[in-house]
Amino acid sequence: MRHFAVLDKVPTGISGFDEVAVGGLPAGRCCLVSGTTGSGKTLFAVEFLARGIAQFDEPGVFVTFEETADDIRRNAASLGFPIEEWEAQGKWTFVDASAKVADEAPTIGEYDFGGLLARIGAATRRISAKRVSIDSLGAIFSRFPLGGVVRYELFRIVAGMEQLGVTSVVTTERISEYDGVSRHNVEEFVVDNVVILRNYLAEQRRRRTVEVVKLRGAQHRSGEWLFTIDPERGLVVIPMAYIVHRPAAASER
Amino acid sequence: MRHFAVLDKVPTGISGFDEVAVGGLPAGRCCLVSGTTGSGKTLFAVEFLARGIAQFDEPGVFVTFEETADDIRRNAASLGFPIEEWEAQGKWTFVDASAKVADEAPTIGEYDFGGLLARIGAATRRISAKRVSIDSLGAIFSRFPLGGVVRYELFRIVAGMEQLGVTSVVTTERISEYDGVSRHNVEEFVVDNVVILRNYLAEQRRRRTVEVVKLRGAQHRSGEWLFTIDPERGLVVIPMAYIVHRPAAASER
Amino acid sequence: MRHFAVLDKVPTGISGFDEVAVGGLPAGRCCLVSGTTGSGKTLFAVEFLARGIAQFDEPGVFVTFEETADDIRRNAASLGFPIEEWEAQGKWTFVDASAKVADEAPTIGEYDFGGLLARIGAATRRISAKRVSIDSLGAIFSRFPLGGVVRYELFRIVAGMEQLGVTSVVTTERISEYDGVSRHNVEEFVVDNVVILRNYLAEQRRRRTVEVVKLRGAQHRSGEWLFTIDPERGLVVIPMAYIVHRPAAASER
Amino acid sequence: MRHFAVLDKVPTGISGFDEVAVGGLPAGRCCLVSGTTGSGKTLFAVEFLARGIAQFDEPGVFVTFEETADDIRRNAASLGFPIEEWEAQGKWTFVDASAKVADEAPTIGEYDFGGLLARIGAATRRISAKRVSIDSLGAIFSRFPLGGVVRYELFRIVAGMEQLGVTSVVTTERISEYDGVSRHNVEEFVVDNVVILRNYLAEQRRRRTVEVVKLRGAQHRSGEWLFTIDPERGLVVIPMAYIVHRPAAASER
Amino acid sequence: MRHFAVLDKVPTGISGFDEVAVGGLPAGRCCLVSGTTGSGKTLFAVEFLARGIAQFDEPGVFVTFEETADDIRRNAASLGFPIEEWEAQGKWTFVDASAKVADEAPTIGEYDFGGLLARIGAATRRISAKRVSIDSLGAIFSRFPLGGVVRYELFRIVAGMEQLGVTSVVTTERISEYDGVSRHNVEEFVVDNVVILRNYLAEQRRRRTVEVVKLRGAQHRSGEWLFTIDPERGLVVIPMAYIVHRPAAASER
Amino acid sequence: MRHFAVLDKVPTGISGFDEVAVGGLPAGRCCLVSGTTGSGKTLFAVEFLARGIAQFDEPGVFVTFEETADDIRRNAASLGFPIEEWEAQGKWTFVDASAKVADEAPTIGEYDFGGLLARIGAATRRISAKRVSIDSLGAIFSRFPLGGVVRYELFRIVAGMEQLGVTSVVTTERISEYDGVSRHNVEEFVVDNVVILRNYLAEQRRRRTVEVVKLRGAQHRSGEWLFTIDPERGLVVIPMAYIVHRPAAASER
Ligand SMILES: Nc1ncnc2c1ncn2[C@@H]1O[C@H](COP(=O)(O)OP(=O)(O)OP(=O)(O)O)[C@@H](O)[C@H]1O
Ligand SMILES: Nc1ncnc2c1ncn2[C@@H]1O[C@H](COP(=O)(O)OP(=O)(O)OP(=O)(O)O)[C@@H](O)[C@H]1O
Ligand SMILES: Nc1ncnc2c1ncn2[C@@H]1O[C@H](COP(=O)(O)OP(=O)(O)OP(=O)(O)O)[C@@H](O)[C@H]1O
Ligand SMILES: Nc1ncnc2c1ncn2[C@@H]1O[C@H](COP(=O)(O)OP(=O)(O)OP(=O)(O)O)[C@@H](O)[C@H]1O
Ligand SMILES: Nc1ncnc2c1ncn2[C@@H]1O[C@H](COP(=O)(O)OP(=O)(O)OP(=O)(O)O)[C@@H](O)[C@H]1O
Ligand SMILES: Nc1ncnc2c1ncn2[C@@H]1O[C@H](COP(=O)(O)OP(=O)(O)OP(=O)(O)O)[C@@H](O)[C@H]1O
Ligand SMILES: [Mg+2]
Ligand SMILES: [Mg+2]
Ligand SMILES: [Mg+2]
Ligand SMILES: [Mg+2]
Ligand SMILES: [Mg+2]
Ligand SMILES: [Mg+2]
Repeated sequence: MRHFAVLDKVPTGISGFDEVAVGGLPAGRCCLVSGTTGSGKTLFAVEFLARGIAQFDEPGVFVTFEETADDIRRNAASLGFPIEEWEAQGKWTFVDASAKVADEAPTIGEYDFGGLLARIGAATRRISAKRVSIDSLGAIFSRFPLGGVVRYELFRIVAGMEQLGVTSVVTTERISEYDGVSRHNVEEFVVDNVVILRNYLAEQRRRRTVEVVKLRGAQHRSGEWLFTIDPERGLVVIPMAYIVHRPAAASER
Repeated sequence: MRHFAVLDKVPTGISGFDEVAVGGLPAGRCCLVSGTTGSGKTLFAVEFLARGIAQFDEPGVFVTFEETADDIRRNAASLGFPIEEWEAQGKWTFVDASAKVADEAPTIGEYDFGGLLARIGAATRRISAKRVSIDSLGAIFSRFPLGGVVRYELFRIVAGMEQLGVTSVVTTERISEYDGVSRHNVEEFVVDNVVILRNYLAEQRRRRTVEVVKLRGAQHRSGEWLFTIDPERGLVVIPMAYIVHRPAAASER
Repeated sequence: MRHFAVLDKVPTGISGFDEVAVGGLPAGRCCLVSGTTGSGKTLFAVEFLARGIAQFDEPGVFVTFEETADDIRRNAASLGFPIEEWEAQGKWTFVDASAKVADEAPTIGEYDFGGLLARIGAATRRISAKRVSIDSLGAIFSRFPLGGVVRYELFRIVAGMEQLGVTSVVTTERISEYDGVSRHNVEEFVVDNVVILRNYLAEQRRRRTVEVVKLRGAQHRSGEWLFTIDPERGLVVIPMAYIVHRPAAASER
Repeated sequence: MRHFAVLDKVPTGISGFDEVAVGGLPAGRCCLVSGTTGSGKTLFAVEFLARGIAQFDEPGVFVTFEETADDIRRNAASLGFPIEEWEAQGKWTFVDASAKVADEAPTIGEYDFGGLLARIGAATRRISAKRVSIDSLGAIFSRFPLGGVVRYELFRIVAGMEQLGVTSVVTTERISEYDGVSRHNVEEFVVDNVVILRNYLAEQRRRRTVEVVKLRGAQHRSGEWLFTIDPERGLVVIPMAYIVHRPAAASER
Repeated sequence: MRHFAVLDKVPTGISGFDEVAVGGLPAGRCCLVSGTTGSGKTLFAVEFLARGIAQFDEPGVFVTFEETADDIRRNAASLGFPIEEWEAQGKWTFVDASAKVADEAPTIGEYDFGGLLARIGAATRRISAKRVSIDSLGAIFSRFPLGGVVRYELFRIVAGMEQLGVTSVVTTERISEYDGVSRHNVEEFVVDNVVILRNYLAEQRRRRTVEVVKLRGAQHRSGEWLFTIDPERGLVVIPMAYIVHRPAAASER
Repeated sequence: MRHFAVLDKVPTGISGFDEVAVGGLPAGRCCLVSGTTGSGKTLFAVEFLARGIAQFDEPGVFVTFEETADDIRRNAASLGFPIEEWEAQGKWTFVDASAKVADEAPTIGEYDFGGLLARIGAATRRISAKRVSIDSLGAIFSRFPLGGVVRYELFRIVAGMEQLGVTSVVTTERISEYDGVSRHNVEEFVVDNVVILRNYLAEQRRRRTVEVVKLRGAQHRSGEWLFTIDPERGLVVIPMAYIVHRPAAASER
């Protein structure tokens, strides 16, 4: 059985996820990671960069909006990632858009996306970054009442990332676990690759799943996969579920 | 039992689909292919052209909005379709509307549909195309807040395609699998032929179905049909489901 | 048991339907036929005229908006209705409003309903038509954001048809099978007679039903009745369902 | 057990309904009759006047908006009510607001309710009417986008009717059988007495029920009561349901 | 087991309700009574004043908007409350805001709440009222499209009532029994004490319940309690339900 | 098994809650407490400060909007918290924003958040507060129609609280128990830590649960935990539920 001539894949290094994504995220492309609050978007974005540095020596740029660089540093430290050390080594750099947001009153419907792209580009070149995480566009997109504008700007950001040659992760917000798509009803359609993190209540308990909804031009496993957030290992996608439900031979998408 | 004097049909060449559509898509008409993100719209649009060339030697024009021609080329390559080769042979040509979108800031409520139709017409004449795929109108329609305008413009595009004499596929976006119709609530009503691709979660697993909702003036099988995306053969509508559920003699619509 | 002194009824000639409508549609009145896409509205409107000519020698006017006269001709031909022949004999005539729509850019909130009524009136007088089908108002009504305007214009069209003395069928669009009413939330309330065509998915299969929701001042059977679209006979409402579920003696509404 | 000192009641004469309303509708007050299309609102409004004349010799005024006086006359005739005869005898008179609607283009947000009230008042005095039916306000209210305006105008009409000293029925439209309230979300709250007619699909069949939702200051039975539309007797609320479900002694509300 | 040092409570005198509210409504505070049409809001508001006079000799002010004072007088008479007598004795007085509404066309977004508060204040002082019922704010609030304004004005009314030193009941409208909150989505959050009256259809029959949703700073029983409207005793909350479902010892909230 | 290097935690002192939050709320951060009306938001905000003073001698600032300082004092007294005494000792101080709201008519879309932050800062410094409770932002946010503005202002308040170095609780309003997020659809995404209080009706009875939805950078238990409001002890999260459903050894998040 001949397989697709897949796009090059970049292993995320996130435990178990690369098996679901059949090798990782498409190299040089952008992946949307969408989820409700607390579903693990920031953790995914952080691990994507951190494991890139720790396991594959690929420098990364982390773009924040509402959380400060310090928040991310501390958060990552709790998972054993020495961000400050990596910053000193020129392996990790922050583009902190959050300061800007706080300084000045926002004008609804305005944001300098061109300037943002320029700053990300500069940071990328400075440390020769291979990975970029943008977490999250929710704050900025909340200013735009029209889905059409959100769609256009997201398209520009994705195109910008791909022109930089980096593999990138962009997080966006979902309002409910299973209904509809992301907040502005357009996000998933714009981006080549989409991962959804879910965190749903079933009989008073939370259950986390990850799903690769699409990888344009590349193979991936379908359906929801259980994961946990382990104090030691961070995001851990559970391969047991895979083994139980599906024969290893099958390679459906 | 006398059968309808059906419209001429153009076999798509998509495995199993032409059985559901009882011969293929109506010749010289436009077909709307609608689905949620990752449901297989682009794959359908690509295969429609590629199989046209490979199996029936019918040249085709592929119109893209958000994905670049390169994205489509690479994607198709993974399914074994040598698009670049076909471009060199004058059998496949791209009308790449995506570049335009990225260059300039969009003005909400404006898009030069007349210009687009002219470009598609020129490309069609240049390679004597018999098939056109337009994937997807979602990006442009997102700019129009009013269903009435979307309806009118979609009507114009469909009319334009039929005046060119080509058999065409236009993809649009659905927000949910089973509720309502396409994004702007009018798309399905405007176009003569409608195919819906679904990709729904059932107990954590994805299941894909295709349904021919209507072919104006032509026979087709009704209901949802399972399909998979095979690494080797692309979209494969499963005839087994047909055999099990329905006696071969029945020809209901 | 005395029965209602019913309005005169015009048999549609549609197989099985006149039994459900207890004789047919009220003579000289307008009937709204509403349904989702592909539910059979156009087929109903076509058969209403075609059977009027074939079985009762009543000439008819067919008003189209988005489908062209040629589309309808070809579609009808597949059901064995020789529309062109009838046109030549002065038994069928088209008022083709679709051309107009395509020529000029629409101005939202504007449409010359007076002109349309005049054209329908002229056509009716020219061939002494007894039946008129208007299929469908969806395209024009999409331009009006306010239910109040739709309601008023639909009221005017219905009043215009009744002043012409014809029995008429007007089709409108529903967005979902069972929730609410037609697209603009007012259509059913305005018209004296309402028929709903449904086409719902149940376990991956489509099932078609027709329901006479009301006939003002006239008897009809209540509830949903199964129908199929037969290649030879067109719309066929299934009398079996009637026999099984209801004693023939009962004449409830 | 002492009973409420009830408001005077006017028996409607509608078969079985006066038992549910414990004597009829409150004298000199207005009652809202609300229902989906085809639920029987017009029949109720017609019977209320017709039985008032036939059984209690109380003259009545019928106000129409979208249906013409002729429609009502013919409809009533089928139920054995000789409206024209009564008109000649000065027992029934129409205030036909429908003509006005058709003559001139409507201006959204404008309607001369003062003039309407004056015309109803004049008609009432001319024939010394004791009952007024207004069927239906839906057409006029569709012009007002704001619930607040609808509420105020409905309030004025109700107040106007009560100043005339007549017992009146006003019909309004509901969009769905069980969810929410009437079309504009305010109607039921404004009027002292509310009756809802339902006509719901259960397993492809229609079932009709009537419910007295409230009678301010007066007793009534609660819950839904089955009714049928009998060719001979018109609306027939079925007392069997009453006998089976409730002990005759209980007098709950 | 030590109990909360509860706020002073004012017994409403409504049969069974004071047990649910553990003594009655918080003294000197305002309580929101919300429900769908016919749920018993006006009855609650009337009984609150009437039982205050009859059982505790506390004069009361009744503020009406859409119902006239005469409506309330007659309604109360049917329950055996001699309002006119009490008015003569200076124990009950009406502030009739309904007349004002009917005289003049309303300007959307305007209402003189300051003037209303002044009139209530004057009436309160004139008869040394201890209780005030305001029934219902729905009519006025319908004029305001923005929840923010409704919230602010309701806040002002509540504050005004508390400055007068009276214990008050304000009724507002709910659109559905179990979904969401009151009509404007803010009412329950503004007021210290909230009671919901429900009247839901279960298998064609109505069932009434009352629930104390919150009493800020005071104990109350939780959950829904059945009640009936008794011709002799008015609102009767059924203590049986209490006895059956809960051990008398438990005092949870 | 190595555990996360957690953020410092501040025990709330609320019975049972600190076990769910694995030590308490992250020190120096802001926590959003969201719930429907009567769910216990104000109680949580009061206890957070009161137990801080009583058990850990940490002074606190309480910011009120719609409830007055007196309301809170009295409410707290019923739970045995001597607020006035603490105020005299400089351990508790109110920033009473409610007066301002009542004095002047609100201008939709305007509120001096800068001034509020300044007043909170001054109060914090005056008593060297370690904890701040803001209850609730609902009143102010109701004035802003756009989610983008609410998001920005909430972001500013949270940032302001963290700059003051205090651990803070901000309450916001939810419209339904399980659907969607907070009133403006953005609140949960902005704040680092989110707790949801639920109070749902199941078979006529209320059941209360608390859930820690996320603590950014810190461990917490997942899922819903039952709690009651005890007259003596206030909020009591029930550890039994924990013991029954989960083995004590597991430390999942
Ligand atoms: N350092 C940590 N240690 C333990 N658990 C953590 C840590 N950081 C986050 N978590 C938990 O992991 C889950 C995912 O957190 P994360 O911040 O990635 O969510 P998110 O999807 O980015 O949410 P938001 O939309 O609010 O930004 C949350 O439940 C959170 O409480
Ligand atoms: N070359 C490929 N090899 C394997 N799987 C692929 C390939 N290209 C696409 N897929 C998968 O096929 C499915 C359909 O993809 P496709 O791009 O056709 O969806 P779509 O409906 O066009 O989505 P969108 O609305 O996002 O454009 C996705 O799950 C995707 O991951
Ligand atoms: N000539 C034909 N032969 C066989 N089937 C047909 C023919 N014409 C239509 N059909 C089928 O009959 C069904 C009803 O078609 P019809 O065009 O009447 O629907 P419609 O309600 O008018 O839809 P729309 O809202 O899209 O105009 C569709 O499923 C269609 O595929
Ligand atoms: N003369 C009649 N003979 C038999 N059935 C009738 C007659 N008139 C009406 N009906 C039936 O009675 C039902 C109620 O009709 P009615 O006109 O009262 O409804 P409605 O609620 O006023 O509807 P709409 O909102 O469309 O005005 C309908 O199903 C209709 O078909
Ligand atoms: N005097 C009375 N005798 C018997 N039943 C009555 C009396 N007054 C009211 N009722 C019934 O009591 C119920 C509650 O009536 P009430 O007027 O209190 O409702 P409401 O909630 O105020 O409604 P609305 O929102 O329409 O004002 C209704 O079903 C009504 O029919
Ligand atoms: N002092 C008290 N004694 C007993 N019960 C109380 C006391 N204060 C509040 N309660 C109850 O505790 C519950 C929670 O009240 P709380 O005021 O905290 O709710 P909330 O979420 O702040 O509501 P809102 O959104 O209306 O402000 C309510 O049911 C209330 O009746
Ligand atoms: Mg995050
Ligand atoms: Mg696509
Ligand atoms: Mg059609
Ligand atoms: Mg009617
Ligand atoms: Mg009331
Ligand atoms: Mg509170």
